[in-house]
Amino acid sequence: MRYLTYKIGDSTSWGAITDKGVVDLGAKLGGDLHSIIREDRLKEAEALALTSEASHQLDEVTYLAPITSPGKIACIGVNYANRNAEYKDGSEPPKFPSLFMRTPESFTAHDQPLWRPPESHQLDYEGEVVIVIGKEGRRIKEEDAYKHIAGLTIMNEGTLRDWVRHAKFNVTQGKNFVNSGSIGPWMVSADEFTVDQFENMRVITTVNGEVRQDDTTASMMFDFRYIISYCSKFFHFQPGDIIATGTPNGAGARFDPPRYLAPGDKIEVTVEGVGTLTNGVIDEPIEN
Amino acid sequence: MRYLTYKIGDSTSWGAITDKGVVDLGAKLGGDLHSIIREDRLKEAEALALTSEASHQLDEVTYLAPITSPGKIACIGVNYANRNAEYKDGSEPPKFPSLFMRTPESFTAHDQPLWRPPESHQLDYEGEVVIVIGKEGRRIKEEDAYKHIAGLTIMNEGTLRDWVRHAKFNVTQGKNFVNSGSIGPWMVSADEFTVDQFENMRVITTVNGEVRQDDTTASMMFDFRYIISYCSKFFHFQPGDIIATGTPNGAGARFDPPRYLAPGDKIEVTVEGVGTLTNGVIDEPIEN
Repeated sequence: MRYLTYKIGDSTSWGAITDKGVVDLGAKLGGDLHSIIREDRLKEAEALALTSEASHQLDEVTYLAPITSPGKIACIGVNYANRNAEYKDGSEPPKFPSLFMRTPESFTAHDQPLWRPPESHQLDYEGEVVIVIGKEGRRIKEEDAYKHIAGLTIMNEGTLRDWVRHAKFNVTQGKNFVNSGSIGPWMVSADEFTVDQFENMRVITTVNGEVRQDDTTASMMFDFRYIISYCSKFFHFQPGDIIATGTPNGAGARFDPPRYLAPGDKIEVTVEGVGTLTNGVIDEPIEN
Repeated sequence: MRYLTYKIGDSTSWGAITDKGVVDLGAKLGGDLHSIIREDRLKEAEALALTSEASHQLDEVTYLAPITSPGKIACIGVNYANRNAEYKDGSEPPKFPSLFMRTPESFTAHDQPLWRPPESHQLDYEGEVVIVIGKEGRRIKEEDAYKHIAGLTIMNEGTLRDWVRHAKFNVTQGKNFVNSGSIGPWMVSADEFTVDQFENMRVITTVNGEVRQDDTTASMMFDFRYIISYCSKFFHFQPGDIIATGTPNGAGARFDPPRYLAPGDKIEVTVEGVGTLTNGVIDEPIEN
């Protein structure tokens, strides 16, 4: 089942997408998608959605991020084997994943424009599969990791390239400009995927229709199970926490000359079995 | 005025510390310290506290972090000039601050033990002055930055040294073990400080009474005003957001051999005009 969080008119709600359209589950069950995951009520939500009439059509709603205020947004760096090769520094494959965090405000939603800030014109795309945690846990074993996934969504992990190199040890700055990335359009519940699908899921990013990234999760150096298990050694995961699992090679910075995003560009990140996250780009509107 | 968040018996509240003791402001004003800052009601809280009887004595309460769920916890790396020299790599002083983020769960509170996890015995202290943001803002000018401070508190920015080096580009892992750091004991409101005090505030860390770190904010390469202004270029700061401003030299990792924390140690971080944050250390209690 696909679950989304949306605005229609002045009200915010959440719902499921069925053959008939969007079923407003906020009106029927209250809460939000985050609280329903926390209360382990996705099955109840699905049963209700399948026996309900549509409240809206999909083209009537304004998308919000599926989880609007995750407790944490953890992002894995360099995770596709051929992306490590992109760094061309002759380094061995890493022993552990690289990891950084982003704020919820650094993301906009499906069909909303990314913001290119006045501080940098090196806005770049990174298409990624995103895990939404469904069940809390610490020191989760790899063999139990899939049970902790509520569902998958998609991220354009938009990055200001020059600002990730501001400091010696961390990329935080270039990863946290307001509305520089995007999450959505919806979360597909974990029961829609087999283990084989999790482990060989295609990720394609296009810019203005041109394919820039095209790989599958089979190329990951650290797969979903490893990532969940590893990160839970220090994090205590909570329902609604977000893990972005890294991006394939082909980001704009890796072209010579680099191909950064500019106003008017259209970026589509497609994850097999999940959907397509679409965003334009505008220069950030600045209040004076 | 000193504001704290605390438990007494089974209930959680917040209050102010006066000559008479702790005035329970949760009972009188509702909300929590975070919501009172957001609503710009600290002056109202102070007036009420000064005309109220004490509800508790300070030794009766169990401290919690002053802001229990900050929207973001941003931590500045290597910020004291002589700490950059500690790295002994012949590098120039940095042009921009290093920055990473921590989760609220990575901190315990005053008088609670830090946890040394089974994954690493390289638990280290870092005493720091902490800014609590009082007023939202983006692209805050340096000359306006002090107006965005609600108050100051103290952090032991506890770190697992080997885990900060797990990955090439980021220190996230070693900075985010549950209860590896501490915040508190209280927030002192910004009106208690002059600009001169902000800019020359002594920070002392002791371990079992032995001084390990002793410096002042005058040694910072990036002062409070710069940090707030710089970070607000990408972050949209919100009331209750936390900025840890970096630690002086003298962390345990810099001794030869390194002097990591062990169960039974007592760490005290004193910030002039703010107070002393005290924590013990225990091996993390693991559920089986």
